[in-house]
Amino acid sequence: MTERTGRVICDITISADGYAAGLHQSEERPFGDDGGDGSGDRLHAWMFDTPDENRAEVEQLNTAAAFIMGRNMFGPVRGAWDRPWNGWWGDDPPFHAPVFVLTHHAREPQQMNGGTTYHFVTEGIASALAQARAAADGDGDVTILGGATTINQYLSAGLVDELRLHIAPLTLGAGTRLFEGVPPLRLEQVTSRPASLVTHVTYRVLS
Amino acid sequence: MTERTGRVICDITISADGYAAGLHQSEERPFGDDGGDGSGDRLHAWMFDTPDENRAEVEQLNTAAAFIMGRNMFGPVRGAWDRPWNGWWGDDPPFHAPVFVLTHHAREPQQMNGGTTYHFVTEGIASALAQARAAADGDGDVTILGGATTINQYLSAGLVDELRLHIAPLTLGAGTRLFEGVPPLRLEQVTSRPASLVTHVTYRVLS
Repeated sequence: MTERTGRVICDITISADGYAAGLHQSEERPFGDDGGDGSGDRLHAWMFDTPDENRAEVEQLNTAAAFIMGRNMFGPVRGAWDRPWNGWWGDDPPFHAPVFVLTHHAREPQQMNGGTTYHFVTEGIASALAQARAAADGDGDVTILGGATTINQYLSAGLVDELRLHIAPLTLGAGTRLFEGVPPLRLEQVTSRPASLVTHVTYRVLS
Repeated sequence: MTERTGRVICDITISADGYAAGLHQSEERPFGDDGGDGSGDRLHAWMFDTPDENRAEVEQLNTAAAFIMGRNMFGPVRGAWDRPWNGWWGDDPPFHAPVFVLTHHAREPQQMNGGTTYHFVTEGIASALAQARAAADGDGDVTILGGATTINQYLSAGLVDELRLHIAPLTLGAGTRLFEGVPPLRLEQVTSRPASLVTHVTYRVLS
């Protein structure tokens, strides 16, 4: 990793009590008991209802050279890949870059339109990061998109440089919580920016 | 409560993972395992190291006509009042108003210098709020200072109008967590303001 120059960034929207998704996630309700219809629309209202106001944060998300996400973020299929599933984002996903999906079940890469290819990694988080760094040519940023469980694993392993939180004005009370089980972290607040439906906070992870 | 005009405000500093204090609180370490010496100095660095930058938030704290706090915030004495204890804040506490302390152990009011009197309430949170409102003359704000356990009780009971959070750049991983056990809340983000060592966020509690 001596040649590493790109950063490892986590970017995630959470409720004021730190949840990235509620309980009881399903194909119909990917965010589970999220205080609305399970679509995550209340958590992500800042992104969809006020895009102009939050353009910088959305564009920042799209500058990564490679992405990582957990199996549960990729889709509702559990266990073997026993039915077709190519993510929640349609034929032309917004990533436009390689996306490394953590899974226990091997699968061939899936090329989508617009530059997105889903790669399925069965060798764990360190391997996914190494592959994503290689895909990012060593000097592009790798962004871990979630869910919280995946980010918590990377935080616990000390592999994260920067944490971009988008804190939405609601609490969920239960679900998948960011920082759950993660040892205490020293953070440096790099930026904090208010918008009408969210507070954006970026931390550098010091230790 | 029809004549109520003052608001009920909770004002508390939390870590990025939502803790107001770490585990193992004691007289020597009132904030327990807080990532430092237990004094809460890292959580509250915004208040003590950068007072000019955060003058508005500190002054806002001092505009309440009455305060409420839990027994654990008031001091380390547990059980009966078997030794002298008049709070962490010396002879001239910064409250300059009546402070209602929730406890299971009756005690006579304790008058301090500068307008602060500690009143000890054994009849629970609703009684403490009624007494604080009466002391606030019905139209002054009542501010609940913490700890998180006390605020969680008021939130769960639907008695809070406004929540002022000061989010510090560290995580504690364990301890007393704001929103723990509180049913989901709909919030409206009233203000959000960045400072160098903290992000201030004020929410109106909608339901």
